[in-house]
Amino acid sequence: MSTTRREFIANTGKAVVAGGLITLAENNTSEMAENKFIHHVYFWLKNPDSKEDKAKLIAGLKKLSAVKTIKWFHIGEPAATSREVIDGSYSISWCTMFDNGPDQDSYQTDPIHLKFVEECSSLWTKVIVYDSIDAK
Amino acid sequence: MSTTRREFIANTGKAVVAGGLITLAENNTSEMAENKFIHHVYFWLKNPDSKEDKAKLIAGLKKLSAVKTIKWFHIGEPAATSREVIDGSYSISWCTMFDNGPDQDSYQTDPIHLKFVEECSSLWTKVIVYDSIDAK
Repeated sequence: MSTTRREFIANTGKAVVAGGLITLAENNTSEMAENKFIHHVYFWLKNPDSKEDKAKLIAGLKKLSAVKTIKWFHIGEPAATSREVIDGSYSISWCTMFDNGPDQDSYQTDPIHLKFVEECSSLWTKVIVYDSIDAK
Repeated sequence: MSTTRREFIANTGKAVVAGGLITLAENNTSEMAENKFIHHVYFWLKNPDSKEDKAKLIAGLKKLSAVKTIKWFHIGEPAATSREVIDGSYSISWCTMFDNGPDQDSYQTDPIHLKFVEECSSLWTKVIVYDSIDAK
C-alpha cells in the first residue's frame, strides 16, 4: 500500500492486521489483507453442463487445498449477478491466498498440485489466472 | 460445496469455519471460506504508466473499503509471475468478500460506492468483474 499502516488506520478508523489474516470483528468493519499473494484461477469446463465433471473438479480442488502454503481458499461458482462488466461464463473459481510469492511458487511445483493437474486438467478447456500482490 | 462440512473435515483433516472468516491457525493448514460471496474486480487504467492515476485509484479503493458489508478486502497489483494462462495486464485488483449476495447488492448502491465510481471511473478504461458464491 502506498500509505503506512498507521496512516491507513488514522484515515479510516479501520483496524489493519498485517502478516496473518484477520479475525473478523463482529462490529461490521471491513478488514484489509496486507503482505499477501492472491492467486485467483477461473476454470471453464469442457462440458459445462456436466454435473459429474463439475463435482470432479470441486473434489480435485478440495484435495489441492491440502497444500500447506495455502493460507486461505474459496471454491466458487458464478453468482446470479449480471451487469455488462461481469464475466459469469466460467464454471469454477479457485481463490487462494499465500503469505508471499515464494509460497505460491512452491505451490506450483508441490506434488499435490502436480497430481491435481494430472487428474483434472482434462476437465477444463480454458483457464485464466490473476496473481496479485499488495498494491504499492 | 457438494460435501457436507463433516465429510470435508473427515476427508481432509482441515478445519472449516463457516459463517465468519477464519482465524488463521499457526500450524500451516489451509482454511476454507464457506457461505461467502467473493466480488473480484480487475481495473485497467487509462494511463497505466501514470503513478498519479494509480495512486488515485488505490486511494479511492481505500475509501471504498469503508462500506460496512465488506468483510475483507485486498488491493492488489500484478505479481511478477508469468505463464501462458496468467493475465497480468490489469493495473489494480480489488478482491472483496461479503457474507452473502444481498450484502454485495447493497454495496453496489451504497453512497460510498457511488461516490467512488463518480470520483474514479474516469481513471480506468476497462473493468472485469467476477462474482462467486460457494460452489455446490
